[in-house]
Amino acid sequence: MTLRITVFGENRHEKFDQRVQELYPEGMHTTIAEGLTRTLAELGVETEVRIALLDDIEDTLSDEVLAETDVLTWWGHIAHDDVPDEIAERVVRHVREGMGLLPLHSAHYSKPFRLLMGTTCNLLWRNDNDEERVWTVSGSHPIARGVPHPIVIPGQEMYGEMFDIPAPDEQVFLSSFSGGEVFRSGCCFYRGKGRVFYFSPGDQEYPVYHQAEIQRVLANAALWAAPQEGRERTPVKISNAPRDWFRDGVAGPGEDGEALDRVI
Amino acid sequence: MTLRITVFGENRHEKFDQRVQELYPEGMHTTIAEGLTRTLAELGVETEVRIALLDDIEDTLSDEVLAETDVLTWWGHIAHDDVPDEIAERVVRHVREGMGLLPLHSAHYSKPFRLLMGTTCNLLWRNDNDEERVWTVSGSHPIARGVPHPIVIPGQEMYGEMFDIPAPDEQVFLSSFSGGEVFRSGCCFYRGKGRVFYFSPGDQEYPVYHQAEIQRVLANAALWAAPQEGRERTPVKISNAPRDWFRDGVAGPGEDGEALDRVI
Amino acid sequence: MTLRITVFGENRHEKFDQRVQELYPEGMHTTIAEGLTRTLAELGVETEVRIALLDDIEDTLSDEVLAETDVLTWWGHIAHDDVPDEIAERVVRHVREGMGLLPLHSAHYSKPFRLLMGTTCNLLWRNDNDEERVWTVSGSHPIARGVPHPIVIPGQEMYGEMFDIPAPDEQVFLSSFSGGEVFRSGCCFYRGKGRVFYFSPGDQEYPVYHQAEIQRVLANAALWAAPQEGRERTPVKISNAPRDWFRDGVAGPGEDGEALDRVI
Amino acid sequence: MTLRITVFGENRHEKFDQRVQELYPEGMHTTIAEGLTRTLAELGVETEVRIALLDDIEDTLSDEVLAETDVLTWWGHIAHDDVPDEIAERVVRHVREGMGLLPLHSAHYSKPFRLLMGTTCNLLWRNDNDEERVWTVSGSHPIARGVPHPIVIPGQEMYGEMFDIPAPDEQVFLSSFSGGEVFRSGCCFYRGKGRVFYFSPGDQEYPVYHQAEIQRVLANAALWAAPQEGRERTPVKISNAPRDWFRDGVAGPGEDGEALDRVI
Repeated sequence: MTLRITVFGENRHEKFDQRVQELYPEGMHTTIAEGLTRTLAELGVETEVRIALLDDIEDTLSDEVLAETDVLTWWGHIAHDDVPDEIAERVVRHVREGMGLLPLHSAHYSKPFRLLMGTTCNLLWRNDNDEERVWTVSGSHPIARGVPHPIVIPGQEMYGEMFDIPAPDEQVFLSSFSGGEVFRSGCCFYRGKGRVFYFSPGDQEYPVYHQAEIQRVLANAALWAAPQEGRERTPVKISNAPRDWFRDGVAGPGEDGEALDRVI
Repeated sequence: MTLRITVFGENRHEKFDQRVQELYPEGMHTTIAEGLTRTLAELGVETEVRIALLDDIEDTLSDEVLAETDVLTWWGHIAHDDVPDEIAERVVRHVREGMGLLPLHSAHYSKPFRLLMGTTCNLLWRNDNDEERVWTVSGSHPIARGVPHPIVIPGQEMYGEMFDIPAPDEQVFLSSFSGGEVFRSGCCFYRGKGRVFYFSPGDQEYPVYHQAEIQRVLANAALWAAPQEGRERTPVKISNAPRDWFRDGVAGPGEDGEALDRVI
Repeated sequence: MTLRITVFGENRHEKFDQRVQELYPEGMHTTIAEGLTRTLAELGVETEVRIALLDDIEDTLSDEVLAETDVLTWWGHIAHDDVPDEIAERVVRHVREGMGLLPLHSAHYSKPFRLLMGTTCNLLWRNDNDEERVWTVSGSHPIARGVPHPIVIPGQEMYGEMFDIPAPDEQVFLSSFSGGEVFRSGCCFYRGKGRVFYFSPGDQEYPVYHQAEIQRVLANAALWAAPQEGRERTPVKISNAPRDWFRDGVAGPGEDGEALDRVI
Repeated sequence: MTLRITVFGENRHEKFDQRVQELYPEGMHTTIAEGLTRTLAELGVETEVRIALLDDIEDTLSDEVLAETDVLTWWGHIAHDDVPDEIAERVVRHVREGMGLLPLHSAHYSKPFRLLMGTTCNLLWRNDNDEERVWTVSGSHPIARGVPHPIVIPGQEMYGEMFDIPAPDEQVFLSSFSGGEVFRSGCCFYRGKGRVFYFSPGDQEYPVYHQAEIQRVLANAALWAAPQEGRERTPVKISNAPRDWFRDGVAGPGEDGEALDRVI
């Protein structure tokens, strides 16, 4: 199996912010993409990684690209509003049909994540070089496999509770910050036939995505979020189900002419 | 305490469908409102119940009305699209700030519910007079208090799985139908500071809302969903939190000039 | 309604440890009991509080006492093994039938809590005067009502993850410590017809139970955990259910001669 | 990877009950083991399957065998009490350390399952040849991969709600029965570092384990429950954690002389 990953980057800070240019000379998306490729290779997984940037979003997040994407990572911060609503809804539709989504850090405020959560996704923040420690709280979760307990991030923007999200379906990581705040930093959500893993470490002003442990988390998460082999990429349907539709010889197409799903 | 309930009714079938007119001569909303008033009175709870109809939705679901509403019940079916987006978003905003919401039956497809879920809310259906049995699966849930196990509904539209919703935060009821399908018929969701209880029994072509057991469920749910006394109706905020903001004498307003919440 | 609370205290440290005697001259149980009584009175709730100590546990946690107890708080540390297995199982049985249980701090290792969890309940710890900050992560939870965000506890034993418990049914509080660790410090569990709230702040060597915010949490938790009026205190039963048992005129006693539950 | 499965069978009905002998001439355990081997082979997974029977339980569920077992399936019914407490606790210990456990049908009452749940595990039942339909309610769960929606079991013992278990961490399947009852028939639980999948179809008097769809569920579940490669089989530990133990060069063994876990 080849894992097909699309790395979406806003690529705005990289154009004007010297600190970001020093940390990520080829853009944050390049560091994220290379980290995924290398770490997954070490885990024996072949990958095909594409880059999608806000400037070429109409092409790089087209319906065709998303249909061929197993897992989409999403980093955005200052230009969430520049993502067309239609593309945000397209991403959401593909998640519901089975595509994995990894919203990273400030993507808590991205359009696709907010649409999928239904909440404000508000939180506390402070950009003041806090130390962050990322703790595993699930003993058998594949996203925590091989990850140090805790991951120590020497400097990072603080994200703190109350984080206005639905209770995660699985809580993998919790973070504390040197300033005393806590945060649900690694959260799994199931939506439709797709999987979403929100991971908060990773601000543009800190070299977080260069850290091997962070790359390992992202690699684990990509494996976790990918659709399973042999599952069709379709949404859960609305169907008029005639009586006994699920019995041999009885089931026919629904009123709307579409055959009823016999496998979810 | 007086529980302030607003009963939203689409009131469309009532205008042209003879079967519905016979079952609900004064409209489904009236039956729902009267059932809530009577059942809550029996439970010793005083209520103030308003009716809001699609025809006067701009007035009856105004910001002022919602701010004075503890719990909003919502029934809609053929005219979901006639609810203005702005009002759907207003309802969602009030839920996030603490208002309770009870989407009923075909309101699985209403705009506010879909916005709060983030999923398609698709399902199977069949209008063929199925018997529905509503089973309690949570031993200590207040919404199941005093409710028969099972509630038997002699005739009802079938709603079946797969129901495309996020996994409920609390599963209170599961239903089976005479045709063999199952459904997660009573589901609790926490969103922001608000509570949502989706309850599927109740189609316009069956006298479900006249059934005392169903009225009891709705009354229990209204009590469960109401905001707690002494809690402010505000959303979870996004705030820039200066270091040590939570220590005595240090905390000041955030960068945006708004004081940080010290009580959620 | 009068809320009937039984406060179980191990009362061992109090007998030989001077530091504990200074902090809690009448025993930790007395401080806990008085805090509950006073805080609940302020909330308008009448209480009837009994004390149960390890030395008189056979009498004070008898079947009769537990049957008349709405909520049992449990503090123990160095003498968990001195609690007879039979009494631990009795407590567990009453929880399953509807009694509320509040295991406090080192009661993570108490026999009733471990029996109810099914896990080791292991954790990290350090007794080194850490500052603990208790953060609310659920926007509408009654146990967080009126509680500062965060509660700051100036000195406290550190309890850290990985805490080996089942994922809580509701996560109310998360704590961070000055040493950098995090902990799921306020956790709700539903078991049978009963409710369990584990709350970790509260070591014998620190004056935690004298803090008004902590007393408020315990008072809120007692209200949350109490069985609802009008619910019978019985376990979920195993029953042989004859076909159509739930239809009028058909249901009879199960094979074992016991009538089937028609209300959970 | 070779998946190492141990199939535990009580093998009592097989000794005296003619109906069972006809359905399962070589014992239910043999049918379960062969179904797992064949189905996993079809999925491209190599297996090593051992049989463990109650008569030789001391040897076949020894500490050594369990340490070499990735997933243990458990079927028992009339002889739960003949399983020594020590062996039940041994199984529980291995689950907490990472072994997968699949309790089947009447194993809802087995000692290991009850110890892991902490509840009574009571339910309704009726042995009267009900039709059971097993519906998928999780759109992306690997245990539902390739499984018909619904699985129809022509004849089966009815298991009905209220089933006294903690709310499952993941609900995969819900069943309805021709008599009208519903049941949470496929339930995932995380306990310590291990995974538990309870699956209710499968009574000794019906040929359920010969059904290919049921075999597929068990194969999927074995893959889901198996410990992940590269994860050590150890319990979550209790440890005294010196300040800064997680920083480079500072961490030493805990007070108890055991090194602290740096990977969960």
